[in-house]
Amino acid sequence: MTPEARRAQLVSAALDLYGARSPEEVAVEDVTRAADVSRALFYRYFSGMEELHVAALGSVAEELIGRVALPADGSLDSQLADALDGFLDVVGRHSRAYVALLRSGSVVSTGETDAMVDGVRDHIVDLLCVRGGVPDPTPLQLMTLRGWVALVEGSVLVWLEASRVPARSELRDWLVEQLFAMLGVTVARDPDAQFSTTPSALGTSR
Amino acid sequence: MTPEARRAQLVSAALDLYGARSPEEVAVEDVTRAADVSRALFYRYFSGMEELHVAALGSVAEELIGRVALPADGSLDSQLADALDGFLDVVGRHSRAYVALLRSGSVVSTGETDAMVDGVRDHIVDLLCVRGGVPDPTPLQLMTLRGWVALVEGSVLVWLEASRVPARSELRDWLVEQLFAMLGVTVARDPDAQFSTTPSALGTSR
Repeated sequence: MTPEARRAQLVSAALDLYGARSPEEVAVEDVTRAADVSRALFYRYFSGMEELHVAALGSVAEELIGRVALPADGSLDSQLADALDGFLDVVGRHSRAYVALLRSGSVVSTGETDAMVDGVRDHIVDLLCVRGGVPDPTPLQLMTLRGWVALVEGSVLVWLEASRVPARSELRDWLVEQLFAMLGVTVARDPDAQFSTTPSALGTSR
Repeated sequence: MTPEARRAQLVSAALDLYGARSPEEVAVEDVTRAADVSRALFYRYFSGMEELHVAALGSVAEELIGRVALPADGSLDSQLADALDGFLDVVGRHSRAYVALLRSGSVVSTGETDAMVDGVRDHIVDLLCVRGGVPDPTPLQLMTLRGWVALVEGSVLVWLEASRVPARSELRDWLVEQLFAMLGVTVARDPDAQFSTTPSALGTSR
C-alpha cells in the first residue's frame, strides 16, 4: 500500500467510526482495530487522534466543496436544488463529522477546522456571487448571501437533531425558497442588488 | 472598594481596552496600567487574561440578553425593531468584544465563551417563540428562527467589517423584513407554522 493509500485508509476508518459515535469518543485503538493495523503504523502517519480528526474532517469539507459546484446552465433555482442535494447527501452520510466540524465548542475544534468551515462558507458565497452576476456585491448582498449560508448550516443542525424531519427534498426546496425571499427583501431596499436568477452568463455564453 | 466593585473595574478596563485593539492583544500590564492597580491585585481577582476575557465577554453577552427583551405590547415588527436597536447599540459599543465572542477561531474562544453565544441565541429564539405564540415550534419554524438569529449574527459581522454600512436603522429594518419574509416562506409550506405578528397575547391580556 502506498503511503497515500494507507493515510486514506486510516481517514476512511475514522469516518466509518464517526457513524456510530462522535469524533471525541473515537480512540487510536478503535482506528487501529477497524483498519487492522498496528499502533506503530498508526503513529507513522498521525501524531495522534487530533491530527486524524483534522484530516478526516478536512476530507468531509473537501467533499462538501466538491458537491456544491453549480452546473453552468439551467435556472438558478434548479442549480441550487442540485447543489443542496449534494450538500445534504454529504452531510447525511457524515452527520457526526459535520456536527463536529460546526460545533466550535467540540474537543476537535482547532484553528484548522475553523478555517475549513470558513473555506466552505466563502466558497459557497463566491459561487453564488459569480452565478448571480454580482462579482462585487454590496454590503446588503453580502449579508444576504452569508446569512443564507448560515441559515443552511443552522437548519441542517436542527434537521439532524430532529431525526431528519422534514424530508430532505422538502428541506432543500425550503432553503431555495428562503434564498429567493431573502434576495427579494434585499433588492427592494437596495436597487443595485439585482441578482441574476436566469440561466447564467457562464451557461448562455457557451 | 468591595471585591465586586474591584472585579467590575477590571472588567470595565478590559472592555475599554478592547475599543482600541482586539482582546488577544490586551495584556495584563495594559489592564493594570489602565485601572491603576498592581499586578498582585490583578492576580487576586483573575488567574490571567483568559479568565478576564471570559468575564468581560460574559458581561457583553449579558448586556445583549438584557437589551433584546421584547416589550409586552405593540406589533411584532415594532417590538423587533426596538430589540434590534438595543442589540446593535451594544454590538456597536463593544464591537471587538462581539467579534471575539463570535469568532470561534480566536485565542479567547473557550467552551465558556461558546456557551455564552449559545445562551444569547437560545434566549432570542425562546423570546420569539413565546412572542409568536408557538411554545412548541415545528422543525421548520425552529430552523427559521435559528436561521434568522444566524442571519443577524452574520450580518452584524459584515456590517462591522464594512465600516457600518448601511446605516444602523437600515440594517435594523432590513433584518425585520427578512424575518417576515422567512416566516412567510415557512408558513406557505407548513400550515401549522402560523406565527402571531399582531400585538402579543402577553400584551393584550393585561
